[in-house]
Amino acid sequence: MKLVLAIVSNDDSGTVSRALTKEGFAVTKLATTGGFLMAGNTTLLIGVDDVKVQQVMDIVSAHSKKRTQIMPSNASYGVGMYSSFPVEVTVGGATVFVLDVERFEKV
Amino acid sequence: MKLVLAIVSNDDSGTVSRALTKEGFAVTKLATTGGFLMAGNTTLLIGVDDVKVQQVMDIVSAHSKKRTQIMPSNASYGVGMYSSFPVEVTVGGATVFVLDVERFEKV
Amino acid sequence: MKLVLAIVSNDDSGTVSRALTKEGFAVTKLATTGGFLMAGNTTLLIGVDDVKVQQVMDIVSAHSKKRTQIMPSNASYGVGMYSSFPVEVTVGGATVFVLDVERFEKV
Ligand code: NI
Ligand code: NI
Ligand code: NI
Repeated sequence: MKLVLAIVSNDDSGTVSRALTKEGFAVTKLATTGGFLMAGNTTLLIGVDDVKVQQVMDIVSAHSKKRTQIMPSNASYGVGMYSSFPVEVTVGGATVFVLDVERFEKV
Repeated sequence: MKLVLAIVSNDDSGTVSRALTKEGFAVTKLATTGGFLMAGNTTLLIGVDDVKVQQVMDIVSAHSKKRTQIMPSNASYGVGMYSSFPVEVTVGGATVFVLDVERFEKV
Repeated sequence: MKLVLAIVSNDDSGTVSRALTKEGFAVTKLATTGGFLMAGNTTLLIGVDDVKVQQVMDIVSAHSKKRTQIMPSNASYGVGMYSSFPVEVTVGGATVFVLDVERFEKV
């Protein structure tokens, strides 16, 4: 048994959780505190049989990996003058730790 | 030293924490995010000497294991007509992971 | 790769996090639930290369170790009579667990 600890962006948290649940994995979401440093992340805990670790990694990756998006951006050039133009931003990304579980019990 | 990670239902969280504290174990409660998937769970972290892991497992189990309860339920059969009858529901349950701790320090 | 789990008092949480971030470590802050037992603690997760574990321990320790502070205290001796005198209180302190990480991925 392994414990997978996946830190994903809040934007991807729901999608990743649903994808894991759909495949039969139990997901526990830990709230991260608000605040400057870690705003926007959620930590997911997933207990998983050794042979299914790769499947979990694949699901997390597929639904949270870093990608670029074109988003509108505004720039102002003076009173009453502004321009809106698209910029490319990076969103998503996940950090995944796999820990060995010495003992596992459901009561 | 081991780290016990116990995911218990919110209903049992206080009882389990108090029982552990009473026996001298330090308990850290992690908040789970609200939301559909994981509503109702609390994750407890307990650092514990190897020889006391079983004691922690026993305390967690004794205060959170799955059990059935008879609860009232309502059914309505039409305008102004309803019936209240008892149903058996399952409550509680815990998932416990024991992790090996490589190094432990109090500062 | 190791996963450092540091439970620090809320008072020290910001200082510890900033000190770690400044040195290039990624910190995830987990919210602890309110409530009697664990009020006032924050759990920090830091993934770290094996050779940098001691550096993380040192930073956490330097910014959160137990110390005494002289604080004002009030005592009232009756209607309209009170005395303010300083008392020594213990603040801070951290509990740190180091776990081995079997696999680590950024996606
Ligand atoms: Ni999918
Ligand atoms: Ni008891
Ligand atoms: Ni410093």
